[in-house]
Amino acid sequence: MTIWLDDLTPGRRFTAGPVEVTEDAIRRFAAEYDPQPFHLDAAAAEAHPIFQGLAASGWQTAALTMKLVVQAMGELGWGVIGTQGDLQWPRPTRPGDLLTLVSEVLEVTPSKSRPDRGMVLFRNATLNQRGEEVQVFTVRVLVPRKME
Amino acid sequence: MTIWLDDLTPGRRFTAGPVEVTEDAIRRFAAEYDPQPFHLDAAAAEAHPIFQGLAASGWQTAALTMKLVVQAMGELGWGVIGTQGDLQWPRPTRPGDLLTLVSEVLEVTPSKSRPDRGMVLFRNATLNQRGEEVQVFTVRVLVPRKME
Repeated sequence: MTIWLDDLTPGRRFTAGPVEVTEDAIRRFAAEYDPQPFHLDAAAAEAHPIFQGLAASGWQTAALTMKLVVQAMGELGWGVIGTQGDLQWPRPTRPGDLLTLVSEVLEVTPSKSRPDRGMVLFRNATLNQRGEEVQVFTVRVLVPRKME
Repeated sequence: MTIWLDDLTPGRRFTAGPVEVTEDAIRRFAAEYDPQPFHLDAAAAEAHPIFQGLAASGWQTAALTMKLVVQAMGELGWGVIGTQGDLQWPRPTRPGDLLTLVSEVLEVTPSKSRPDRGMVLFRNATLNQRGEEVQVFTVRVLVPRKME
């Protein structure tokens, strides 16, 4: 069922997952988009002063989070159209991690100039299997209003 | 040659690209991570009130930008470790677009508590073949200092 701006209020939550992040998938994503040693090579990653072990590219965490977002709230009227947001990676995603999405509506703002739409501020938290945040994306999403 | 915090000053630029975004690559990325009609199906995308034509997932633009970032500044001392940033997609990436990166150092801030490192604020702009920004990521990157 289509979700309109008018259906959303602060505090509403959307969830999805888990999705598993395998070591093989980490290497494949990194080889294509983020070929740095700590995403590709376990020994190099062990020796890295910050990562201290193989870690997924933050962009892989982001892409997998989007997969969960589409599952959780793909029924938004125009689909999920993020325009701008604050992206944080508080800790790395590791091989074998199981990621889940907990998305919460923070603000709902009808457009003043365009009566057919508004902006919804979501806090999309991506959690690992210990409930720790591996990514937080606080994002403005364009959502249509229900037209009579 | 390794790039240290001490080598970076505001205004320094790093560039890379172009990388081509094919229609096939747009569909493949979307099928795996962002399966929404306007990223998968040209007819559905034409009819979409915002996109009006097939558009790449913003996360594909982001992942391809990271590929360019690694080419442009992979020699940072610990690699490219982004921790937090503001991510914007001012316009979509379209099939056949050629993306280039223009990254500029905005601020260099040595850590007060940890003398071996600091934070560098970069503005990573991803441009299409017309010089229009399809993504801007203003991101804090952890960079080591040169130790004597």
